[in-house]
Amino acid sequence: MTITITAFDRSPDGGKGLARDTRVRWALEEVGQPYEVRLVSFGAMKEPAHLALHPFGQIPTYEEGDLGLFETGAIVFHIAEHHAGLLPDDANARARAITWIFAALSTVEPPILELMTARIFEGDKPWTAQRMPLVLDRVRDRLGQLSARLGDADWLDGAFSAGDLMMVSVLLRLRASGLLDEYPNLSAYVARGEARPAYKRAFDAQLAVNKPPAG
Amino acid sequence: MTITITAFDRSPDGGKGLARDTRVRWALEEVGQPYEVRLVSFGAMKEPAHLALHPFGQIPTYEEGDLGLFETGAIVFHIAEHHAGLLPDDANARARAITWIFAALSTVEPPILELMTARIFEGDKPWTAQRMPLVLDRVRDRLGQLSARLGDADWLDGAFSAGDLMMVSVLLRLRASGLLDEYPNLSAYVARGEARPAYKRAFDAQLAVNKPPAG
Repeated sequence: MTITITAFDRSPDGGKGLARDTRVRWALEEVGQPYEVRLVSFGAMKEPAHLALHPFGQIPTYEEGDLGLFETGAIVFHIAEHHAGLLPDDANARARAITWIFAALSTVEPPILELMTARIFEGDKPWTAQRMPLVLDRVRDRLGQLSARLGDADWLDGAFSAGDLMMVSVLLRLRASGLLDEYPNLSAYVARGEARPAYKRAFDAQLAVNKPPAG
Repeated sequence: MTITITAFDRSPDGGKGLARDTRVRWALEEVGQPYEVRLVSFGAMKEPAHLALHPFGQIPTYEEGDLGLFETGAIVFHIAEHHAGLLPDDANARARAITWIFAALSTVEPPILELMTARIFEGDKPWTAQRMPLVLDRVRDRLGQLSARLGDADWLDGAFSAGDLMMVSVLLRLRASGLLDEYPNLSAYVARGEARPAYKRAFDAQLAVNKPPAG
């Protein structure tokens, strides 16, 4: 059955790969599943047809036959559960890899999104300069803990898994901030993720949408 | 094998059931699995023994034989995957229920946690009064979308699932704010969750720790 995902018709990041469809593209590339992409405008995301598929009016979504899913974590998990390559076979190792998917989304990403919100949506507010150190400290708390856990390992728990895919994707949001550079092992971890051929294919595919070649 | 979870030795909410161990207790009660609880102090949560189990120094954790997990979403999912009662049998319905676990944690809870942060950790800051309407609007955006999706259904997608367990748990954080009252169908949804015998048992169990009987 054909897999169809949705993506922004024009990503707010201009093709830096930070829109969440990149995470789903990466997962599909890791497991070798072809997919189609339906581009959605900001206006269309808030209209009934898209809201029927995604109640919060966002991308990505995932359609395969009569299954429709939303929520990046759920989609990546679904792909990992149904195709080999993103979750270990051993039951305990599998449960721990799933734990890292949740940890990336529920524990590490929220303070990073708060930082994005403070910079982008509250960047012009009178309180933002004074408040920023608090926001940055919350991100550093999480990065410090993650850095301590990762140590000098290549990946969070044995072989590369969907948990690493999600954690690297979350940390990539910090590239422009310079914060990652404070944690050399996390910078190297993110670089290992970006170096994977599947990531490169996913990145290039989203870039092709967001920066059409001149001509 | 014995299941052991961790919980605060004294919950910051004084027993209102908002600490995340309540979510895990609820899941275990729904599937009828007995469990033991190891209480952890705030100090001990940041020490090596606990950090080995939970790299971010929080509760709950989950131990069963040689498996150790952290991250509430992952633990609830693990319980739901290994015991009947929290995920539908039909493959597509199961994938959708998992989607709601992620939606609760990744899309609905973050703005609610931002509200808690603004009230509790930034409550004494000079910017908080001026900033609060923005924070509240972000919560209302999500509640409005969730309310529209739920409509007059009892649960988010067919029968009660782990997705509802997590969404009700997330929404319960808003009880004191009065925001839930703006969405009668969400208030009723939360009340249906709280009325479940398994929830009541979980709530009472955490209350017993946090408010020891006089005498």
